[in-house]
Amino acid sequence: MKLVRFGEKGDEKPGILDDQHRIRSLEDHIYDIDGNALSDEMLAKLAKIDVNSLPEVGDVRFGPCVGNIGKILCIGLNYSDHAAEAGMDVPSEPVLFTKATSAINGPNDDVLLPRGSEKTDWECELAFVIGKEAKYVSEEDALDYVAGYCILNDVSERAYQLENTGQWVKGKSCDTFAPIGPWLVTKDEIADPQNLSMWLEVNGKRFQEGTTETMVFGVKHLVSYLSRFMSLQPGDVISTGTPPGVGMGQNPQVYLKAGDEMSLGIQGLGVQTQKVVSE
Amino acid sequence: MKLVRFGEKGDEKPGILDDQHRIRSLEDHIYDIDGNALSDEMLAKLAKIDVNSLPEVGDVRFGPCVGNIGKILCIGLNYSDHAAEAGMDVPSEPVLFTKATSAINGPNDDVLLPRGSEKTDWECELAFVIGKEAKYVSEEDALDYVAGYCILNDVSERAYQLENTGQWVKGKSCDTFAPIGPWLVTKDEIADPQNLSMWLEVNGKRFQEGTTETMVFGVKHLVSYLSRFMSLQPGDVISTGTPPGVGMGQNPQVYLKAGDEMSLGIQGLGVQTQKVVSE
Repeated sequence: MKLVRFGEKGDEKPGILDDQHRIRSLEDHIYDIDGNALSDEMLAKLAKIDVNSLPEVGDVRFGPCVGNIGKILCIGLNYSDHAAEAGMDVPSEPVLFTKATSAINGPNDDVLLPRGSEKTDWECELAFVIGKEAKYVSEEDALDYVAGYCILNDVSERAYQLENTGQWVKGKSCDTFAPIGPWLVTKDEIADPQNLSMWLEVNGKRFQEGTTETMVFGVKHLVSYLSRFMSLQPGDVISTGTPPGVGMGQNPQVYLKAGDEMSLGIQGLGVQTQKVVSE
Repeated sequence: MKLVRFGEKGDEKPGILDDQHRIRSLEDHIYDIDGNALSDEMLAKLAKIDVNSLPEVGDVRFGPCVGNIGKILCIGLNYSDHAAEAGMDVPSEPVLFTKATSAINGPNDDVLLPRGSEKTDWECELAFVIGKEAKYVSEEDALDYVAGYCILNDVSERAYQLENTGQWVKGKSCDTFAPIGPWLVTKDEIADPQNLSMWLEVNGKRFQEGTTETMVFGVKHLVSYLSRFMSLQPGDVISTGTPPGVGMGQNPQVYLKAGDEMSLGIQGLGVQTQKVVSE
């Protein structure tokens, strides 16, 4: 299933794509695409619905594809080539940081440059969404806890992240810095999360081109590893890092400016497009 | 007002203390002590209620004093003496890190030692709670955005925080590592948040004794500073750092073990008591 949330910001409704990729409303069946809707039982119920019998929704905004997200965990330096371009070593264990949930944005909403920002950058990432509480989970069982996959653009202000005092979160959490979606694709549709091609373009120029095959720590390992440090809750989003080609890695470096347009996609998960605007 | 949340874990009800410090139920007036209840308008409405006319609640568990918290932001090394004991410099700007909201705990609930943890430590901290959205706020106006104050024990696994790969969040976000409460004290009752005494004891031995007077970056500055990097939302909790006396700062170092009991208090904000248990 390709689950979506559609409608006005803050008032998104649950939906599902039909085989023509038209949005159909799930409003008569569930309240939201959130932790409650992502249990095995609820997903099995949704899978039984005849999608073509659902009311069709016209041309409408895509919201973030998961609602009421409790936390966004992100993995840094998780592609060996990206670590090299960032001038950092491939870590021996997953590098964990967070984005504030107030940064969550629709997949095609504008991305706001914070006032005075000069180093805002892009990162096309595969994210996975938790379906049931995970704590001290083995790698073998890990995928049982994953409901599905989506794209996350891990927008990052490099000066705030790296040149400022303290921790990365400061450059990762600006409002609109976490576009999520357009679709939450349930895991039955993704044969192998470690074999998906991905790309990102700015103003039509391709900067990132990679595959999740070169991820250092894969989805199974991340579920198991993270669940040793904290419980992963239904609806939590975990973003798995970015392949090479970020703006910081260019020579000379390239950063986003007002008027730029980012497009990014991951095989089977759709495409995001964001306009960059000054705040 | 001293606002509280009482009852079973995950099913807490809103309440308020009367002048005898007995809990009175606010269930007939608001759904929860959360972002919606903390606006100036809602707090003004609550202030008009005759507390002694409210139903009295018996002996009951205190929950975390704020519900539906969107994010917990924490400030590191924000007392000069604590920075010294941690062997770090006083930062030139606030050091920001986060705790996952899944770590939130009632003020007197057990604190769980993660499996294999050997360096779990305590940090008595003054936290403030946001009452209305703050973005690019001046220091002068900053307190308009604060609804009130509470205690937060910033429980920290030092090996996960400092010896592991990556960012502090890994040692700050274990389940139960964020006891919050017992009371959310509205700001009208706290004449000066930069002049509150605070203390923490383990098994009756006093380890931390300090005052918010020696905070490097005060509440006003923090609201203004943080609001440049992201919007602060109603119900967000910001914890302002800890004075000297953490376990890592002892010689030899002292860490929590199963069976230990922590007690901590801040002037005007009540007392927390937690038993430490193995997970």
